[in-house]
Amino acid sequence: MAQKYTTREQDYSKWYNEVVSRADLAEHSDVKGCMVIKPYGFAIWEKMKEILDKKFKESGHSNAYFPLLIPKSYLSKEASHVDGFAKECAVVTHYRLKNAEDGSGVIVDPEAKLEEELIVRPTSETIIWNSYKKWIQSYRDLPILINQWVNVVRWEMRTRIFLRTTEFLWQEGHTAHATKDEAIEETELMCNIYADFAEQYMAMPVIKGLKTESERFAGALETYCIEALMQDGKALQAGTSHFLGQNFAKAFDVKFADKQGVMDYVWATSWGVSTRLMGALIMTHSDDDGLVLPPALAPIQVVAVPIYKSEADLEAISEKMNDLGVKLNKMGVSFKYDDDDNRRPGWKFAEYEAKGVPIRLAMGARDLQNGKIEIARRDEKTKQIIDFDGAVQYIDDLLKEMQSNLFDRASKFRIANTQSVDSYDEFKRKIEADGGFILAHWDGTNETEEKIKQETKATIRCIPLDQKREEGVCMVTGQKSMGRVVFAKAY
Amino acid sequence: MAQKYTTREQDYSKWYNEVVSRADLAEHSDVKGCMVIKPYGFAIWEKMKEILDKKFKESGHSNAYFPLLIPKSYLSKEASHVDGFAKECAVVTHYRLKNAEDGSGVIVDPEAKLEEELIVRPTSETIIWNSYKKWIQSYRDLPILINQWVNVVRWEMRTRIFLRTTEFLWQEGHTAHATKDEAIEETELMCNIYADFAEQYMAMPVIKGLKTESERFAGALETYCIEALMQDGKALQAGTSHFLGQNFAKAFDVKFADKQGVMDYVWATSWGVSTRLMGALIMTHSDDDGLVLPPALAPIQVVAVPIYKSEADLEAISEKMNDLGVKLNKMGVSFKYDDDDNRRPGWKFAEYEAKGVPIRLAMGARDLQNGKIEIARRDEKTKQIIDFDGAVQYIDDLLKEMQSNLFDRASKFRIANTQSVDSYDEFKRKIEADGGFILAHWDGTNETEEKIKQETKATIRCIPLDQKREEGVCMVTGQKSMGRVVFAKAY
Repeated sequence: MAQKYTTREQDYSKWYNEVVSRADLAEHSDVKGCMVIKPYGFAIWEKMKEILDKKFKESGHSNAYFPLLIPKSYLSKEASHVDGFAKECAVVTHYRLKNAEDGSGVIVDPEAKLEEELIVRPTSETIIWNSYKKWIQSYRDLPILINQWVNVVRWEMRTRIFLRTTEFLWQEGHTAHATKDEAIEETELMCNIYADFAEQYMAMPVIKGLKTESERFAGALETYCIEALMQDGKALQAGTSHFLGQNFAKAFDVKFADKQGVMDYVWATSWGVSTRLMGALIMTHSDDDGLVLPPALAPIQVVAVPIYKSEADLEAISEKMNDLGVKLNKMGVSFKYDDDDNRRPGWKFAEYEAKGVPIRLAMGARDLQNGKIEIARRDEKTKQIIDFDGAVQYIDDLLKEMQSNLFDRASKFRIANTQSVDSYDEFKRKIEADGGFILAHWDGTNETEEKIKQETKATIRCIPLDQKREEGVCMVTGQKSMGRVVFAKAY
Repeated sequence: MAQKYTTREQDYSKWYNEVVSRADLAEHSDVKGCMVIKPYGFAIWEKMKEILDKKFKESGHSNAYFPLLIPKSYLSKEASHVDGFAKECAVVTHYRLKNAEDGSGVIVDPEAKLEEELIVRPTSETIIWNSYKKWIQSYRDLPILINQWVNVVRWEMRTRIFLRTTEFLWQEGHTAHATKDEAIEETELMCNIYADFAEQYMAMPVIKGLKTESERFAGALETYCIEALMQDGKALQAGTSHFLGQNFAKAFDVKFADKQGVMDYVWATSWGVSTRLMGALIMTHSDDDGLVLPPALAPIQVVAVPIYKSEADLEAISEKMNDLGVKLNKMGVSFKYDDDDNRRPGWKFAEYEAKGVPIRLAMGARDLQNGKIEIARRDEKTKQIIDFDGAVQYIDDLLKEMQSNLFDRASKFRIANTQSVDSYDEFKRKIEADGGFILAHWDGTNETEEKIKQETKATIRCIPLDQKREEGVCMVTGQKSMGRVVFAKAY
């Protein structure tokens, strides 16, 4: 407890790194820009995966697996796609090492050079549409609704754990449809699934919206996104769902015969969320004492610590605690009893606080005698003494309350940090002084968007799906606008 | 049904490829040696993963994630390890593409050459022990029991779907221990977990044993394995668990202080199974009509097909079938009702047969009137008419019976194809004529093992853990031997 940690106020970025490290979530590897996800961090990611995977399957999607390595030529087939990804590709050029003749170690065998270089997938549209070409002949073969949970590599120059790493884990859905409407419906469905997941499980309110042309996925006609607001007032894009039109079908020549036998190109979508969600989760809820986790994603929801002087006390307390654990497990609550004799209770309290365990129980000999137990909630850092007898129900209720409390807290924060602004001067002042989401009118042009970005570092996060129709004028050019878009500085 | 498929008798290898393709499990991609695992195949792999993952967690292991890309120099740190893998490594040398100046497309940007090349992981001992070095100081930090589910790449010249592919999916466990005994215990535990999984879920009998020195994992002191026998009389190594001694700890300088403060190198294990298990599963049970799946790993356990002439019939049958489906789902049985109007019953029967769905139900208007249903079991290809009223219980019992029937059938096959042989002449004749497992005495030397391999293509699959002590003489050299080892030609 003696060690002082950085607060959000002092240095938000340093605070973030410390939260990640104190909670033992992940660390940098010696491979530039690549992270090691440690067991506790991975357990949170596994919970996310499990919930999302269930939602994907319930909405008719299946998992599959496509190769990691993509022939260089595939990437070039869709023009804007290659422009978007060529600059950050890890390229495999050889398939063998050999011992150096001078005995200095192993070297790349120059004779094992590939005829065509392979790219480590930065995303899989090209290799997947190359397969879909073989799978699709008629409308009967449609829709194809496939997802894969995989690793991808995008060579990043400036990396931050979970938020931007050279290698990251994600899921990428790739669907093929007979009609434009059906593909758009799918794109919207997945955006809604992401938003529901963010709000109900991550307790993180999001704005659903459309990206502007300049922020769209390379190869998409429309990119839907969910945007969240972090505690430092910066926005974070938490998931995207792309309507790809017929671009990839044309690039890979994928046509189908409709019911009348007329041939047409197939309509496509793709959508993904990544380990970046871990960064969003951490930055949405955590405080100066460490990680704060919503109960729905906490690997350990309840931890119990015995406080004892004698072996006899410990034994009596342990019996009660283990009994409680069994009952909680039966209700689907994950429970850990930490009776490690090598650590003192104070150390344990700080440890589980840093790890964001939602509820901490403590019981001493006197509590035992009085039929009481101490219960501390991580979100509000309050504690109280309750009757041991009603503890199971109390805990179950409290976990639900904490889940909605975290969402409410984050929603209030977002409301407090969202402002409408009408002049560009005011915009510049506010984006610099307050950060947060700024709703403003924009003339719809790339030029204005780029000017704002250059001058303020703020970008258009999205055109919200629930945008109010409201006549106004662009704050920069004075051109007519029919509604406000969401600006912010972003991760 | 008109199409004739290859039988096992005619061409085993072609039969295998057809089973994979007819069941829609996987296909070759255009990337040399890499496969696409299709949704139905991936659903089987997901079931395997889920069961194994549960077993790993129950035995105290956690999942984590380590980087895909490994600095070339790491590989060299353990001498025999680099010898084992250097010849099959995909090497990343550049991190960017650019447009060719002559407009001919994208090329590798020569200015984006990495200072040190990165290897796409063929296995992760080196990068993991490079992390463990930072995590381990004292005996308190031990044991570390970590697993990861990932993709790996080993450049293979001759590939076969699931059995040997350039990229494959696997899990790799990597554990660190304070004592040699504990590490060996872990190695044996994991070998047992693999064997239990193979026998109880895959219905595939296996021999547990130790690899000879020449067949050991590159860097291991001892490799435990499970070996199965395929229907063509060839053996398949289905899983390995390695006792690595202190080799990797020494290579990466990972020491710990024991309770007395004495420093020592850490003891290690690693263990893995891969998508190769899919190949083993297919080849153990399938027949000339297609895939046969043990119920425990079947994505669809029961499929029901209505046989009808009128819409009214269909409606009445559907009502019964959907009701049955709900009841089966409640018992944990996966059920599919296929009322697709575009396909005739005969087509569906053949389709689900090829896909290895364990139980197929069919109901027509007369069955409905009589309160009957037709039930066909995939393993024995028999069918009978049963009372609809008792169907749920009947199906549940039958699935259990089929699971053990498949195991019994495979066990009988293995017994019938395992022989003891005492002379090398007899060995040569039998390995050529009969295949299968041959138990024979061997003098324990690499030389003799190599000679047998060169002359017969048979290898020592393992020294069985339950080897009987039995004095004998090596069939080749006449040297003394204390027990028989298992020979076979192998995948």
